[in-house]
Amino acid sequence: MKKYVYSFGGGTADGDGKMKDVLGGKGAGLAEMSRAKLPVPPGFTISTDVCNLYFERGNQVPPEVDGQINEALASLEGKMGQKLGENGNPLLVSVRSGAKFSMPGMMDTILNLGLNDQTVQALERKSGNPRFAQDCYRRFIQMFGNVVLDIEKHDFDQIFEARKKKVSAKFDTDLTAEDLKAIIAEYKKLVEKKSGKAFPQDPRQQLAMARDAVFRSWNGKRAITYRRMNQIPDNLGTAVNIQTMVFGNLGETSATGVGFTRNPSTGEKAFYGEFLINAQGEDVVAGIRTPQDISQLDKVMPPVYKQLREITSNLEQHYRDVQDFEFTVQDGKLYMLQTRNGKRTGPAAVRVAVDMVNEKLISKEEAVLRVDPQQLDQLLHPVLDPVAKKTLALLAKGLPASPGAAVGRVVFTADEAVVQAVKQPVILVRAETVPDDIHGMEVAKGILTSRGGMTSHAAVVARGMGIPCVAGAGEIEVSERKKEMTVNTGGKKLVLREGDWLSLDGSTGEVFSGQARTIDADPSSGVLATFMEWADKFRGSFGVRANADIPRDAKVARRFGAEGIGLCRTEHMFFAEDRIPHMQAMILARDEKSRRKALAKLLPMQRADFAGLFKEMDGFPVVIRTLDPPLHEFLPKRENLMVDLARLPHADAKTKKEMSGRYGIPAGQLKKELPALLARVEELHEFNPMLGHRGCRLGITYPEITEIQARAIFEAAVQVSKKGVKVIPEVMIPLIGSVEEFEHQKKIVVQVAQEVLGKAGSNLKYMVGTMIEIPRAALTANLVAKEAEFFSFGTNDLTQTTMGLSRDDYTKFQKDYEKAKIFKNDPFAVLDQEGVGKLIDMAVKAGRGARNDLEVGICGEHGGEPSSVQFCYRVGMNYVSCSPYRVPIARLAAAQAAISGDKTETMRTA
Amino acid sequence: MKKYVYSFGGGTADGDGKMKDVLGGKGAGLAEMSRAKLPVPPGFTISTDVCNLYFERGNQVPPEVDGQINEALASLEGKMGQKLGENGNPLLVSVRSGAKFSMPGMMDTILNLGLNDQTVQALERKSGNPRFAQDCYRRFIQMFGNVVLDIEKHDFDQIFEARKKKVSAKFDTDLTAEDLKAIIAEYKKLVEKKSGKAFPQDPRQQLAMARDAVFRSWNGKRAITYRRMNQIPDNLGTAVNIQTMVFGNLGETSATGVGFTRNPSTGEKAFYGEFLINAQGEDVVAGIRTPQDISQLDKVMPPVYKQLREITSNLEQHYRDVQDFEFTVQDGKLYMLQTRNGKRTGPAAVRVAVDMVNEKLISKEEAVLRVDPQQLDQLLHPVLDPVAKKTLALLAKGLPASPGAAVGRVVFTADEAVVQAVKQPVILVRAETVPDDIHGMEVAKGILTSRGGMTSHAAVVARGMGIPCVAGAGEIEVSERKKEMTVNTGGKKLVLREGDWLSLDGSTGEVFSGQARTIDADPSSGVLATFMEWADKFRGSFGVRANADIPRDAKVARRFGAEGIGLCRTEHMFFAEDRIPHMQAMILARDEKSRRKALAKLLPMQRADFAGLFKEMDGFPVVIRTLDPPLHEFLPKRENLMVDLARLPHADAKTKKEMSGRYGIPAGQLKKELPALLARVEELHEFNPMLGHRGCRLGITYPEITEIQARAIFEAAVQVSKKGVKVIPEVMIPLIGSVEEFEHQKKIVVQVAQEVLGKAGSNLKYMVGTMIEIPRAALTANLVAKEAEFFSFGTNDLTQTTMGLSRDDYTKFQKDYEKAKIFKNDPFAVLDQEGVGKLIDMAVKAGRGARNDLEVGICGEHGGEPSSVQFCYRVGMNYVSCSPYRVPIARLAAAQAAISGDKTETMRTA
Repeated sequence: MKKYVYSFGGGTADGDGKMKDVLGGKGAGLAEMSRAKLPVPPGFTISTDVCNLYFERGNQVPPEVDGQINEALASLEGKMGQKLGENGNPLLVSVRSGAKFSMPGMMDTILNLGLNDQTVQALERKSGNPRFAQDCYRRFIQMFGNVVLDIEKHDFDQIFEARKKKVSAKFDTDLTAEDLKAIIAEYKKLVEKKSGKAFPQDPRQQLAMARDAVFRSWNGKRAITYRRMNQIPDNLGTAVNIQTMVFGNLGETSATGVGFTRNPSTGEKAFYGEFLINAQGEDVVAGIRTPQDISQLDKVMPPVYKQLREITSNLEQHYRDVQDFEFTVQDGKLYMLQTRNGKRTGPAAVRVAVDMVNEKLISKEEAVLRVDPQQLDQLLHPVLDPVAKKTLALLAKGLPASPGAAVGRVVFTADEAVVQAVKQPVILVRAETVPDDIHGMEVAKGILTSRGGMTSHAAVVARGMGIPCVAGAGEIEVSERKKEMTVNTGGKKLVLREGDWLSLDGSTGEVFSGQARTIDADPSSGVLATFMEWADKFRGSFGVRANADIPRDAKVARRFGAEGIGLCRTEHMFFAEDRIPHMQAMILARDEKSRRKALAKLLPMQRADFAGLFKEMDGFPVVIRTLDPPLHEFLPKRENLMVDLARLPHADAKTKKEMSGRYGIPAGQLKKELPALLARVEELHEFNPMLGHRGCRLGITYPEITEIQARAIFEAAVQVSKKGVKVIPEVMIPLIGSVEEFEHQKKIVVQVAQEVLGKAGSNLKYMVGTMIEIPRAALTANLVAKEAEFFSFGTNDLTQTTMGLSRDDYTKFQKDYEKAKIFKNDPFAVLDQEGVGKLIDMAVKAGRGARNDLEVGICGEHGGEPSSVQFCYRVGMNYVSCSPYRVPIARLAAAQAAISGDKTETMRTA
Repeated sequence: MKKYVYSFGGGTADGDGKMKDVLGGKGAGLAEMSRAKLPVPPGFTISTDVCNLYFERGNQVPPEVDGQINEALASLEGKMGQKLGENGNPLLVSVRSGAKFSMPGMMDTILNLGLNDQTVQALERKSGNPRFAQDCYRRFIQMFGNVVLDIEKHDFDQIFEARKKKVSAKFDTDLTAEDLKAIIAEYKKLVEKKSGKAFPQDPRQQLAMARDAVFRSWNGKRAITYRRMNQIPDNLGTAVNIQTMVFGNLGETSATGVGFTRNPSTGEKAFYGEFLINAQGEDVVAGIRTPQDISQLDKVMPPVYKQLREITSNLEQHYRDVQDFEFTVQDGKLYMLQTRNGKRTGPAAVRVAVDMVNEKLISKEEAVLRVDPQQLDQLLHPVLDPVAKKTLALLAKGLPASPGAAVGRVVFTADEAVVQAVKQPVILVRAETVPDDIHGMEVAKGILTSRGGMTSHAAVVARGMGIPCVAGAGEIEVSERKKEMTVNTGGKKLVLREGDWLSLDGSTGEVFSGQARTIDADPSSGVLATFMEWADKFRGSFGVRANADIPRDAKVARRFGAEGIGLCRTEHMFFAEDRIPHMQAMILARDEKSRRKALAKLLPMQRADFAGLFKEMDGFPVVIRTLDPPLHEFLPKRENLMVDLARLPHADAKTKKEMSGRYGIPAGQLKKELPALLARVEELHEFNPMLGHRGCRLGITYPEITEIQARAIFEAAVQVSKKGVKVIPEVMIPLIGSVEEFEHQKKIVVQVAQEVLGKAGSNLKYMVGTMIEIPRAALTANLVAKEAEFFSFGTNDLTQTTMGLSRDDYTKFQKDYEKAKIFKNDPFAVLDQEGVGKLIDMAVKAGRGARNDLEVGICGEHGGEPSSVQFCYRVGMNYVSCSPYRVPIARLAAAQAAISGDKTETMRTA
């Protein structure tokens, strides 16, 4: 007969740790610990097959399984010297689900099963604690009623709270055994009323009902949704674990505790944890008694302490990772309730990984796989002192848009930020930032916006600059006019004004009022360096570049290990204060001649920028993108102009002066010039700027813009090369949708390159390639690659166009989407592999089909997100490019992809 | 030895009409006519192979080819009794290129080759017309200089014009033989100066040079671009045709003429054409002499007339199509210079096709293939009387946005249109139309806008309504405030005011001032009905539906043969004057309860609309799309509100009253209500509305909107069904990007359907499907089709997102793109098969893979464009849907696709 029930405990087990298919994750873990002779409370696991049989038989467990269960139960009773339902020495058990893949929250646990009106008295006697025994019974009825009988938790709570009120109890623990008995009586009435039957007093019946409830939960709505979201097959089924209850609160020789085999905050190799004598786990949570440090256990129960250290040390050796364990001492006997790999901070993760390699416990490959790339952030940015954080008021929670802590005084305009920043640290607070705010963003310690998502202007720019940023904190209302921000917290309105202290945690999205302490990170720590060295070795030829627009960012990028610049956005340079007038003159020009005149003024400035970048990136490639944003972004906003024009006839001198300053038009000429300016702005106005006249489309309308940018690139390259710097320029044409567009622009670039290089007698090598950021470019990649020497996936825009979803506008209904569970992740943070990824995969294949040495990379925000980096590795890209501060994260993610056995290395021939 | 040179003429030819590969199209045609014993001026063709050899040998014709050319020339001289360069009776020839595929404009023709200072005298003698001879020589030098020697035409023109000025000649024909001689002398000087050599006097040298120039032109820039644009291989080469010159101006026994074998305007079977005695073709163009009707030739030269009728009649039989021919009579001898299938009007095309089937000249399949579907437009709309058109001033030319002629008085607002339209016909003139203008558009005879493209609001709505529209007429400035439109025509400013007459041709984009006569079309003409019947037979199961929002449009659609509604946009209904207040109330509602209250008012109205549509479409499916546009489209414009708010403090009573009317807010409450309204509008403001909160995204945020629409649909269906009408509703969820979105909305629809149908005891069948209009939906079609019962490709939006190109914003740089030849066609008019089409093809396959009876259609603008319809047929769609007036076009296009041998019929299983 097939085996359906697997016993464990007492130093043996029918199953083992590899049998997750049959026993589920929890059951396999319990079997493994038992086999390792650990003192696990004995029990048995009903296999996942039974779950499927249960459904096949119309919600019935087959008789042969029942037989096996009875046998296992009898054996358990023998082991424990207790019997289920026996009034003298009753066996109490827990009942838990456990599928092959962890499905947290799918079903609650049922504890203390086996209690009834009789056995509760036995427990009273055994524990000498009537209150404890009645509370166990009370909890059991509540859990059973809720999970098995589907009675709402709320109904139980009402009874409980009513009793507390009646006896004026402040805490649950103020209730006496008699109070609890009264509650139990009412609970039983509730159960009878709601389920139509009395609460089952027969423990065997309790067990069968609990088991069946666990099976049914497999096909509950929550579980089905969870499986679909996580792509877990529906036919796996869940196992049921039935395990003897143990109690740490049976007197001074009992205890309960938790611990780690190493310090989870620092990674230090030190036994770490705490315990309470005569207590249950929940007493720690209630916070009534202060637990003792685990080292004190040695004094109170030396043999138990010794045994615990031995066991946990063996567990760490066995699982080859830091263990997070729970234990209970019942009557001087140690029981291990759980052990699992311990969660840890970023610094701890790196330290443990490196230490364990040195201890020869794990290989370097394993070490590299052990650290979650996202956690590296904690090693690269200052963090808020966790203690200081507790003393401040949490104002709001926005999106963790750019990691790190920032503390400073509030300012509401970029101009004010510049003024104040020379004296004190400032936090720039805006409803949303615009390109005009750059100068203020640069000097701020941190940025807070009330609108916008993970890829809003504020978020993208802040990440690029490595400045902490919390974006889209919707609870905050920002009034630039009044110079104040208002937050409704708990019905109370809190107003912060210019100069008030504010603390941000860009890694969590938290916003605090007041001045927190920060702790600096140490990115060059020796352990981290060792760790990254290993990671880079495994990463192989797969490159990591940085998105950087100015030399300062390029320098940071190099420090973090970037191997080139994957995206330099030239428009960033045009927004600088000394350039925007020339840029505006260029845009307002009515013919090519005056346009060229304005461009000529920009040429030397751009050349100097590029020269700076080339110098920083000596020996590494620099991808420079030609002008991308629509021209109206460089002009005043249309609606502001319209309003000012409407106000002008009645404007007083002060208002006129303001307008004059705003538009750079003398006050006396406003009446004439403002309408003309508005007319041009109207001309450039677009319904959907994202899909409008931008990218290569500008270069096709105004070839002279592309020409002047190419000239600046190659003149800078020649100039810097002469000083012995190795320059590798890659000119990137944005927003290509068809090869015809690319050819048009490439021709201009090549012509200028030949002219400039020819004149200088230089044989500098360069490439001309394109950004793949609209679906059509990906769909026709075979054609585009015939002309383009490299592809760089601009996944921000590619995500927007492929999903037909504006990242800025998405924030308005993002919460509705999250509530309805439409997307698995925020597609602007984590690459949508199912949709956008499919397009990328197609394009890489088609592009390499047309040009086998095509260089392929990614320069969207996703280039620094671990799962996206791994995707890029898998589809055979040559490199990823991300903001400088995410470079180490990308390096690690790529290394992990490499180790995880992707065999795509041969595809990267460029 | 391989044959490189093919003679023709004199009733025989070395080649024939099938040898286009070797002889090019022109050469093959000349050979075919010669073989048919037609009097073609003899000559010979140098094959396309020689062109390739020429390039292989470094721009040299191989000696063996030279030998064959000499032989062919000697034979030609023998046939003609003339010799190239002989002073007594010189042979003159034309030299023309001719590739396998017609490449118009690739190279100019060289005429009169063989003339030099001596032979021109022989021509003088022979023709008795010194002026004619000198003019031939003058033209020859000019053509040769330009085409062969690369001298700019402008240089020749300067000399010519200077002479005209000197002798005060008004027309070219005022120049005497002596004048021309003087010009020739100067031309020769010019040639010597520019080319460094004297003008070649040796006709054999002339011939070799002309031949080589033709070969070189194959690799000219123009030709290469043309080939790439038209996907013609580069290795085909061009042939060179050398043909004896004949002259129709050698006296009263010579003549020249053109004609058609049937009337190209009406299709009537009647010999049709005109001729001039003693003239050359260009004399007709010069317009100095009025040609005679071809029937007169019978009186002047009876044998020639008889021969011409015989020949052309045979030609029609031979080519089995209307022939457009050119002939010359030299000294009483008829020469056929050209014959080709004649271009014809739409009515003529249909009539000829039907007649020729009845004459058993062609099959029904051929007849259906003979008519360009676009031409059907001419049979479905009134046209401007071509004679009357000539008497009016052409004001401007815009885009032919919606076909047909319209004549009426100008109005500048929708409200005024409604007022005036009851008294007289009106033309609504707007800078651009907005949904608010619908009531005015409905009553106008025609619509004219100065902004916007083929898919602008005006264009789309006008086509839907079948109202003529000219869009984007950029030369016109429209001032709604001043109630006038201004046009700059030839430096002169013309102003039209309200009430002035205006005539539009929506089929050509022409705008005339004044009141033109129109000629009504007869869509139910018997010939057309017969023709369409044949087309429908070949079309088979492939359906044609119409996009129609209201019963009136549905009625029109049925009349034009629509087999259902492929797209009903429910928002159209919400814009109606009696509904928009409820719609606005719904949007301004702060909670679900008040939103439902407003929706409840809309429910009966929507139900009535749907009932009307179902009635019209008895027995045919009706696809109803749930609400699609972003909500702010229903509210006043943000910038207008901002300006009005700025004006409010200084506004006088009149202005306040205006504002009050505009926003439906009592004047006294403007101060309080306007800011509140603006605040909500600001909340709804989007950066990229096209990619924003619209489509299914609205339904996910506000499920009650979807619910109420579903309720209206199914209640209407039940109501109409009870009256015996067969209702087939297909509910379409717009803007799906992931199956999760679709499931969310489908659940709501199905729930309402079950409730409503259940209550009515109805077992009505319905489908729930989706619009595929963003790339991600297409990319994940396999998943979406698991839930969706039908797909309808919304190619307007799919084109926008796939190309990352906003159709409204594209118009701003469309001219630059056309100049740079980036796109082959306007992608919003003709489906981009290379990019968007690829995505569609993938999606159809993936969708059918998941659900083999998936119904697939298209409802974008492309559904009425012939090449796009044929694409839809090829990829295996079940139907296309287009505006009612384009239904016959789509029917014909589909029939043509079917006949063209697509074997996809089996794929359409639904």
